[in-house]
Amino acid sequence: MSPPDGFLLLILSSPSGAGKTTLTRMLMERCPDLRFSVSHTTRKPRANEVDGRDYHFVDREAFLELIDRGAFLEWAEVHGNLYGTSTAEIDRARADVSCTGMIFDIDYQGARSIYAAAPGDTVRVFILPPTIAEMARRIHARAGDSDEMIRQRLETAKVEFTMWPEYDYVLLNDDFDRAYVDLAHIYHAERLRRDRNPWLGGFVQGLQREQVEG
Amino acid sequence: MSPPDGFLLLILSSPSGAGKTTLTRMLMERCPDLRFSVSHTTRKPRANEVDGRDYHFVDREAFLELIDRGAFLEWAEVHGNLYGTSTAEIDRARADVSCTGMIFDIDYQGARSIYAAAPGDTVRVFILPPTIAEMARRIHARAGDSDEMIRQRLETAKVEFTMWPEYDYVLLNDDFDRAYVDLAHIYHAERLRRDRNPWLGGFVQGLQREQVEG
Repeated sequence: MSPPDGFLLLILSSPSGAGKTTLTRMLMERCPDLRFSVSHTTRKPRANEVDGRDYHFVDREAFLELIDRGAFLEWAEVHGNLYGTSTAEIDRARADVSCTGMIFDIDYQGARSIYAAAPGDTVRVFILPPTIAEMARRIHARAGDSDEMIRQRLETAKVEFTMWPEYDYVLLNDDFDRAYVDLAHIYHAERLRRDRNPWLGGFVQGLQREQVEG
Repeated sequence: MSPPDGFLLLILSSPSGAGKTTLTRMLMERCPDLRFSVSHTTRKPRANEVDGRDYHFVDREAFLELIDRGAFLEWAEVHGNLYGTSTAEIDRARADVSCTGMIFDIDYQGARSIYAAAPGDTVRVFILPPTIAEMARRIHARAGDSDEMIRQRLETAKVEFTMWPEYDYVLLNDDFDRAYVDLAHIYHAERLRRDRNPWLGGFVQGLQREQVEG
């Protein structure tokens, strides 16, 4: 990956049912300069999911071929399905001047890989559900997951909960609107970091020239 | 100073006339949980300044005595006047449970000292004027400064401009309302950092207990 150029890699992780996918969509709708990183997966689409928008749905053979070709910045197996982020996906967004960052809806394994590849560009947000009961309710309400998948998700959540100390920010999602405001503040503030605005050096030089000439 | 407990030390610095005092006041009005750090100074009050609100105005002898007693976390001489932040000022705010942070309207020398004393608690924001002409206009419009003081301030600004790379965030104050929104986003986001919320560990343990018992 290229050196830091102000491009922001905003990672959202959480146990299933904590609300990260809904919060990601809320942020995407309001921030046109942020691009959603569409992961590849071998998981079957849910009823409301669209190929190319929510995921690139591929079969296992195609996914393994992409791994062989070195197409993924990161990939992992979760609940027997493969998930991955293609390097080309990020490079396309970086090359687009109307795009200032990408948002990643990925688990802690993906978060670790992306952070390792570009630590200075990465902002990691972990989302917690208010209670286990509420988390379980949201998982059960989700269309298209089998009972076995639901059981696995609740089981995996036990491991995922322990990963929060690896993240820069932690949001408690007891109310989607409030959690969205928190997330939007984080995105806006992180864009203002000195090292994400490479134009500042030239701007201050301009002020100094104005001062000498004035 | 005590170990990190989530208390935020928000530092605003800028060349004179970039607007940091106005932005500080705007944030204070809207964030009652943020306390303004009232510095001590030997400078004479301006027409609109109130003792104990804007500064603790003291004479040079009293200031030197405070230095001798080790009362200051940081102090420095600027334009022939002494400025300092008393440790008691910060300790009082930390002890107040309704107060989640302090805001410091100080120069780069003060910023360095506070950062050195509590790097994990400190967030440093540098404010830039849009142009030198606009900065000079604001300095001239200020009541109570002599021509010599104005000349000195413009001269000092040359040094102050070079300090922006020491700050975490840099704001361009071409419009006070927009710069205020930027500053408010930074404050809100920084409060959400994992390491500023020591209650998170206990909260996640509670979720894990609920999961085992459920």
